[in-house]
Amino acid sequence: MKPLEARDPDFEKRIRESFSCQPFMATIGASLSRVEPGRVDISAPFADHITQQHGFIHGGVVGAIADNAAGYAAYSLIDSYDSVLTVEYKLNLLTPAKGERVEARAEVMRPGRTLTIVRSDVSAYDDGMETLCATAVVTLIRMAGWSDQRGG
Amino acid sequence: MKPLEARDPDFEKRIRESFSCQPFMATIGASLSRVEPGRVDISAPFADHITQQHGFIHGGVVGAIADNAAGYAAYSLIDSYDSVLTVEYKLNLLTPAKGERVEARAEVMRPGRTLTIVRSDVSAYDDGMETLCATAVVTLIRMAGWSDQRGG
Amino acid sequence: MKPLEARDPDFEKRIRESFSCQPFMATIGASLSRVEPGRVDISAPFADHITQQHGFIHGGVVGAIADNAAGYAAYSLIDSYDSVLTVEYKLNLLTPAKGERVEARAEVMRPGRTLTIVRSDVSAYDDGMETLCATAVVTLIRMAGWSDQRGG
Amino acid sequence: MKPLEARDPDFEKRIRESFSCQPFMATIGASLSRVEPGRVDISAPFADHITQQHGFIHGGVVGAIADNAAGYAAYSLIDSYDSVLTVEYKLNLLTPAKGERVEARAEVMRPGRTLTIVRSDVSAYDDGMETLCATAVVTLIRMAGWSDQRGG
Repeated sequence: MKPLEARDPDFEKRIRESFSCQPFMATIGASLSRVEPGRVDISAPFADHITQQHGFIHGGVVGAIADNAAGYAAYSLIDSYDSVLTVEYKLNLLTPAKGERVEARAEVMRPGRTLTIVRSDVSAYDDGMETLCATAVVTLIRMAGWSDQRGG
Repeated sequence: MKPLEARDPDFEKRIRESFSCQPFMATIGASLSRVEPGRVDISAPFADHITQQHGFIHGGVVGAIADNAAGYAAYSLIDSYDSVLTVEYKLNLLTPAKGERVEARAEVMRPGRTLTIVRSDVSAYDDGMETLCATAVVTLIRMAGWSDQRGG
Repeated sequence: MKPLEARDPDFEKRIRESFSCQPFMATIGASLSRVEPGRVDISAPFADHITQQHGFIHGGVVGAIADNAAGYAAYSLIDSYDSVLTVEYKLNLLTPAKGERVEARAEVMRPGRTLTIVRSDVSAYDDGMETLCATAVVTLIRMAGWSDQRGG
Repeated sequence: MKPLEARDPDFEKRIRESFSCQPFMATIGASLSRVEPGRVDISAPFADHITQQHGFIHGGVVGAIADNAAGYAAYSLIDSYDSVLTVEYKLNLLTPAKGERVEARAEVMRPGRTLTIVRSDVSAYDDGMETLCATAVVTLIRMAGWSDQRGG
């Protein structure tokens, strides 16, 4: 497959601004660890307030960064005056997320004029070892003329 | 379909204790609004810290309560010395979640010895009006002899 | 939810014609057993040539009628000059499909201008007893101005 | 990831025998094009009787070979006295399947004692050009002591 290209040269700036406007990402302590055309990673360090009853990082946090990374991977390929919304996703939780941090790596599988399909894998990093803990497939829709700014 | 029956008469107490041991549920302000055999609802009031960039409740929160309600719906039907884990779920986001609160209603479709399938719908309540904003199907696995207590 | 309404008064005729143009449906012996606005059922009688290695009706047949019924349920609500395509579906196989026939019942959960979400349950009928053997959630997209006729 | 290993040295023979006992695979003209530990491909040549109303290979056929290849990929890793069943799958249809044949390539992502997760991509081959037309994630369960032979 040939490399994906961004239509908007300022896509990274646009993504970082949008991400910083998501209070929930701050709540869970997530950050953008990679922003490239068709590829976005989101990382979240372990913290007590994002755990479940066994002390692992909550599946809801794993799902949230998987979906959100997929959204920005799709968003990296569209025009600045458009936006994207998640239509649906399917997430397999492969193993509990334990360790220092989790990271979602989203890659666009199939960019489209209306719909974009993204694969988003989440790994946990525990004492230097990486374990794939979840895998998602996400379908997103482009919202034409619907800018991602609050006042847009 | 005949009504589902709990094997453990103390299932509600067990669920409420487990839920209270999930720091992430406290982080997003979620609470158990209904606990019955095969049916569990989880509610989360609107709050700025769980929103995305357009001011709606974040899809990650919607997914988290959908999955978590499904987990407890399955958990309501098992023995006290067992536990459940989410294998996978698929979530369709139907409309942005706006309003005073969101609520996930999870119902066991097919209880099983090993696997349980649960349908989990999420509604948003805005000024007294209910809107279905997401629907999920969740597959869970029973972990035999694996109690849901931290020290278990 | 208020009842769904067809935009095209001839939707049933349109669906039956389209169905009759699907050689694969004839191959598996499937027929339309119900056509209403937002609701379409497809039935397939047991036959050796659609079985798998244990003598049950093949999961591929179950998936095919679940998806196809969903497609026509969405199709029942659109204009005659448009068409629909399946974007994706998720199918849980609950129990092997054995008996005299299987039937998919598809109901539109959320009709939309671009995307329509449909729930499609498949039951097996064995000696007069109905067993839910699969449940699917299907996402479909409207193809504007793309008629469903071969020469269209 | 280290290469997957078969527990049963005769896995290929076992898979080819099981496949040959699936009448539905013969009905759609499918054949096993690759059998390796954790990796199975199934191919189906274009034929009128497996098409839909626009003359493309039916999505039901695409889903059937994606699921079936995933099943045998999981089956390649288990003991000879066990079997596998599909729990659920999610299929994204990326583009209509047209051309001389379709082929599903299934690879085990995460083998497990009870559950195995498989990724299954389907390509269409048209005049020498390959197009990815569908992608699936499939969850399978091992049925201990349940041989895959009819009389087993």
